[in-house]
Amino acid sequence: MASHIVHAYDAELAELDSLTSQMGGLAEALLRDASIAMQRRDPELAAKAVQSDKKIDDLERRLQDRAIQLIAKRQPMANDLRHIMTVLKIGSDLERIGDLAKNIAKRAQAIAGENHPKQLIAGMGHMSQLAARQLKDVLDALGAKDDAKAMAVWRADESLDALYNSVFRELLTFMMEDPRIIGLCTHLLFGAKNLERIGDHTTNIAENIHYLVTGRILTDDRPKQDDTASASAINGKN
Amino acid sequence: MASHIVHAYDAELAELDSLTSQMGGLAEALLRDASIAMQRRDPELAAKAVQSDKKIDDLERRLQDRAIQLIAKRQPMANDLRHIMTVLKIGSDLERIGDLAKNIAKRAQAIAGENHPKQLIAGMGHMSQLAARQLKDVLDALGAKDDAKAMAVWRADESLDALYNSVFRELLTFMMEDPRIIGLCTHLLFGAKNLERIGDHTTNIAENIHYLVTGRILTDDRPKQDDTASASAINGKN
Repeated sequence: MASHIVHAYDAELAELDSLTSQMGGLAEALLRDASIAMQRRDPELAAKAVQSDKKIDDLERRLQDRAIQLIAKRQPMANDLRHIMTVLKIGSDLERIGDLAKNIAKRAQAIAGENHPKQLIAGMGHMSQLAARQLKDVLDALGAKDDAKAMAVWRADESLDALYNSVFRELLTFMMEDPRIIGLCTHLLFGAKNLERIGDHTTNIAENIHYLVTGRILTDDRPKQDDTASASAINGKN
Repeated sequence: MASHIVHAYDAELAELDSLTSQMGGLAEALLRDASIAMQRRDPELAAKAVQSDKKIDDLERRLQDRAIQLIAKRQPMANDLRHIMTVLKIGSDLERIGDLAKNIAKRAQAIAGENHPKQLIAGMGHMSQLAARQLKDVLDALGAKDDAKAMAVWRADESLDALYNSVFRELLTFMMEDPRIIGLCTHLLFGAKNLERIGDHTTNIAENIHYLVTGRILTDDRPKQDDTASASAINGKN
């Protein structure tokens, strides 16, 4: 971006970045707490995670308000305007990631009292780790305005999708073998789906970093998508 | 809104409304086609629905581009700016509704070849009808700038949530009774969840209409939420 004559304007633009960065840090912590709560069946940690989502929502509202004030006051040129709109989009993806992680924490609360084999939850544990690493990497890329790192995250979403497809099929198999755990496995299915969607939002952020850094919109299709919606996941043939 | 001296500016604001209205019409048709395809196991209609989501995405990009151009060129005052940002939010909710309906269409394709009892899919059929009516009503409220109608939609989301909770529990029961249909029922579970989320986005639109018409942000909590994430949906006790 070109240097601005008005220093106060730079400070206002930097405040948007700072709010986004705070949202990112909170979303990362929320995802980690929700995942640990799910693995350790820890309802207190889950409750803490559910609560912390409110802070992310508040930050997003502040980000939107500040952005609108800045546009109204400074009347930025088209380039700066696109930059501001892109930061708003990143904020919106972080807010959605917070929502999805909160939903995982709620499911952790629901299954906390259940005594179930660890094997059931192992797949979701692997997904959580991968989703958390992706989110950390994309936030690092955002902080460092590092396009190469953002693009590495973008490409790696393929692994998370592949893992989701395998966890999905595994959970269906568990349910067929023991109908008594269908309720529990349904929570895990939706939890795994949430992690896959967190991956999608992380990828959106990577695309927006690419645009912020290079000024070019990424038009390539993503490497791969969740294919369980179109899979013939019927009668155990999957 | 106060009258504008520049008529071209009014025309540009009206174009944003027109793009949003086109998106709404397409989202409504897509949801209808996806639901009929699911009920009638019609893979051709499902494929048509999947395709039509692209048009909604294209319209949203045009809406965003036009909004940014308008802000850059006209440098609107804070009130108009908030109006434009609100229309962008409505566009974003319509785009998400299109995505969720497309996912239902994909699931309709996946289960099209299966011969399953009609009873299984009846609950999702009722949800589809209610979600479609809510979407139609909110689009009517948007076109007519009718706050009372928007608020009626906002309150009625409670019924869709209640119906979702009942369909969710019913599907779990079907799965426990016959593990061979677990794969199929999983598609229906995710499909029902998509309809519940379409209801949430419809409610967001109602809130934004309230803001557009009255200038006030709706701060009340929504009447009720999906409670299946926190329900102890374990071991068939639900």
